[in-house]
Amino acid sequence: MRHAFLVPALIVLGGCAASRPLVDIDHSELVDLTYTFDEHTLYWPNAPSAFELQKLAYGRTQAGYFYAANAFCTPEHGGTHMDAPIHFAEGKMTAAEVPLARLIAPAVVIDVAAKAAENPDYRLTAADVLAWESRHEPITPGTIVLLRTGWGKRYPNRKAYFGDDTPGAIDKLHFPSYGEDAARLLIGERHVAAIGVDTASIDHGPSRDFIVHRIASEAEVPGFENLANLDRVPERGAWVIALPMKIAHGTGGPLRIVALLRK
Amino acid sequence: MRHAFLVPALIVLGGCAASRPLVDIDHSELVDLTYTFDEHTLYWPNAPSAFELQKLAYGRTQAGYFYAANAFCTPEHGGTHMDAPIHFAEGKMTAAEVPLARLIAPAVVIDVAAKAAENPDYRLTAADVLAWESRHEPITPGTIVLLRTGWGKRYPNRKAYFGDDTPGAIDKLHFPSYGEDAARLLIGERHVAAIGVDTASIDHGPSRDFIVHRIASEAEVPGFENLANLDRVPERGAWVIALPMKIAHGTGGPLRIVALLRK
Repeated sequence: MRHAFLVPALIVLGGCAASRPLVDIDHSELVDLTYTFDEHTLYWPNAPSAFELQKLAYGRTQAGYFYAANAFCTPEHGGTHMDAPIHFAEGKMTAAEVPLARLIAPAVVIDVAAKAAENPDYRLTAADVLAWESRHEPITPGTIVLLRTGWGKRYPNRKAYFGDDTPGAIDKLHFPSYGEDAARLLIGERHVAAIGVDTASIDHGPSRDFIVHRIASEAEVPGFENLANLDRVPERGAWVIALPMKIAHGTGGPLRIVALLRK
Repeated sequence: MRHAFLVPALIVLGGCAASRPLVDIDHSELVDLTYTFDEHTLYWPNAPSAFELQKLAYGRTQAGYFYAANAFCTPEHGGTHMDAPIHFAEGKMTAAEVPLARLIAPAVVIDVAAKAAENPDYRLTAADVLAWESRHEPITPGTIVLLRTGWGKRYPNRKAYFGDDTPGAIDKLHFPSYGEDAARLLIGERHVAAIGVDTASIDHGPSRDFIVHRIASEAEVPGFENLANLDRVPERGAWVIALPMKIAHGTGGPLRIVALLRK
């Protein structure tokens, strides 16, 4: 009788390891956290240009088949994009150098939408992070932290999203993001892989010293900005895959970022 | 006694499902299949431009912190990139519209390096595909097929990679890729998710009718071109994550593509 029960147990054990797919797509729902690049893509108010698509070909060729192709120009920092560490720290990693282990990782979402609705300049605090941890569990090294402010629903309305739409002006911006003490806790103590946010910057609108950028850059931690659909990602249990364009000398660049949710 | 063996078996079963991460990173090795975008990035010989990075800022700001940022211009089709179906078929999907299910999937590698070494214009045949299947197993719907020709080691030497480096000339190109009958089998019968190759095109160098592009485009199948490091991906068992820049009206665009290998 012992034998009869041992055999199924071993089959179960063996089957579990062998049949486990590297990406458990059958138990995942994929959510795209990326805005499209087009004429509505938002850039920093004083950016020298925006996304420009140039049509090179569109139509039937002399050989009889259809053919379409474009070229485009864009600043690195606009739309859904990554900040590479070199953006705010000399000698740190370029866009191409950010290791894949910082880009494909389990993710947590910290929600400050209620506080940001009261105060559009709200900054995530260390106390907010500790409160999240007391509700769930300590944030482990290598986690991607996503900050949900609710600002995603304002995109791409420049005035609603940046708090101001005066052309070229950067002195009247209002939107929420990370605060310094939260950044020091997440980056310096929790050793997170990356930080992301559903606003235009990992520093809040009124920032003049860009302290969160500088803390992240110094620690080789990339930032993901202008994230879409964070309202669809749960506070824990998701994975994020964030693959930036591999620009050799890039200070950042266009990012395609998706979440895998357990279904 | 029955009970004593049933309990561990149920624990094993339960543990298997609950502890399974959505991405099994602990049992994966990540391989980047992407070339960097820089001054060496290869474009089609008659492309109107190449990758151009413009430095917007680099150095200490008046406020005392370091800041660097760039802008860039590029044709959509160059370096490691995706061809969206609209590239060769009117009304088909743009770069932003290609569903994630075609971009994150199990992958197989078909190796024709020995044949391509004998004949640089070699085209994958349906017989090659059937031979691969007889050695392994039938290629299942939703698979990403990667064609390994060995051309990756020639990149970015234009003459070695394209077979010619006459500026602007496209009539003397020589490199291997997919053939029409293989494309019809993979796309029309096996219903693969996407096709990729370690040369500049999913059609071989001498092609004038771009028949493989047209078959793929008509079937809404994206193509991945100029793939790096295919020599590191096994014939079966890997997963591919291929995330293109989300260009709203894109006929393709820069692609960041990685393979997860079981380790």
